[in-house]
Amino acid sequence: MTPSAIDALKREAAESAVKKLADGMVIGLGSGTTSEIAIDEIGKRVKEGLRIIGVPTSERVAGLARNLGIPLSTLAEHPRLDVAIDGADEVEIGTLHLIKGGGGNLLREKIVAASSARFVIIADERKLVTRLGSHWKVPVEVAPFGWQATAERLRQTGAEPALRLRENGEAYVTDGGHYILDCQYGPIRDPVGLTARLDGTVGVMEHGLFLGMANEAVIAGADGVKVYRGS
Amino acid sequence: MTPSAIDALKREAAESAVKKLADGMVIGLGSGTTSEIAIDEIGKRVKEGLRIIGVPTSERVAGLARNLGIPLSTLAEHPRLDVAIDGADEVEIGTLHLIKGGGGNLLREKIVAASSARFVIIADERKLVTRLGSHWKVPVEVAPFGWQATAERLRQTGAEPALRLRENGEAYVTDGGHYILDCQYGPIRDPVGLTARLDGTVGVMEHGLFLGMANEAVIAGADGVKVYRGS
Repeated sequence: MTPSAIDALKREAAESAVKKLADGMVIGLGSGTTSEIAIDEIGKRVKEGLRIIGVPTSERVAGLARNLGIPLSTLAEHPRLDVAIDGADEVEIGTLHLIKGGGGNLLREKIVAASSARFVIIADERKLVTRLGSHWKVPVEVAPFGWQATAERLRQTGAEPALRLRENGEAYVTDGGHYILDCQYGPIRDPVGLTARLDGTVGVMEHGLFLGMANEAVIAGADGVKVYRGS
Repeated sequence: MTPSAIDALKREAAESAVKKLADGMVIGLGSGTTSEIAIDEIGKRVKEGLRIIGVPTSERVAGLARNLGIPLSTLAEHPRLDVAIDGADEVEIGTLHLIKGGGGNLLREKIVAASSARFVIIADERKLVTRLGSHWKVPVEVAPFGWQATAERLRQTGAEPALRLRENGEAYVTDGGHYILDCQYGPIRDPVGLTARLDGTVGVMEHGLFLGMANEAVIAGADGVKVYRGS
């Protein structure tokens, strides 16, 4: 698929998800290219009169939303959101378990998703997998202090961790001031077990496995838009 | 007990633990008043010729150790330590489960402890409890982003969370750039279950329950020093 064909699919998924937003909702705004298309669609609807409030997951997304006239707030004001809309790197068919964090915003995205009554994923069909880890590594956000020792512990979970770097060769630093170890597992047979192990690994601040969080995945493909529902 | 009597007990425990250090060891140096006494004792032994390397858990402790002539290094150089020596807020008799973090250094202390072959706690007997949570709250280190929403989720674990403040009334910020929610649980019947829940709570970066980590607790009381061994 060409990049513009992929963008067209993303926009189809985004339009379909944004259509369901209603007056008065407080909405988590994910980061990443697909989320940005959704924010663009939300901006159009706000111009048409939709009254919602957005809670952004990154400074970049806050700027985009502000430029489109979307009223913004924070989790401090609204600790419970109605819906969060976000993209994903992989969506497991059936479970709607996700890998997220390719863009480096997984901590804030997970906090916003966990604070939301509904969590809706939008994606093009390339993101669907039968098993998480098929294409993507699991990004693991770690404390900079002693990250080498944390990497050793992650190796014991079966991963091959690689420190994410910036173009200048220095460590990539997240919004939260942490590093990211991209962990190659290959196809993950027991994502629930792996999540518990990662949650319990000292030095791990957060990780890109989002299990049991997505209520709905709006997936655009050559045959149109399909909506998958989580359990 | 008077403060000076308590200090004398802490020093007895520290002396007893430091006696076992040997040439060539790489040693994690905890933070807090009891750890500082241990560092003082280590400094004496280094002056007498002991050749060890210390890995500090805070800037304050690094400064103290440096002034005492203790050679220092980091987890980057030594991702596996021989022993870590630290204090605790509560030590559960039998299990040697701990509550730590009253001083605010729990994240680095946990990373250092988890990276060490042996973890030795030194304390005076007032710290012994039959059940964790009897006297202390559990400090939970959280991402500043959306901490109010994280506090809501912590309430669902049975806690009454309170944001730790500085004297000037602003939020206390840890070395890692996080906030601390001091969580009142009362006596904790199922610390293993609570640990799993805290580990899995989105927005929690680390917490002060240290379970199954301590190999030994050197406890000084009116009757002398007793050494408790973990399972």
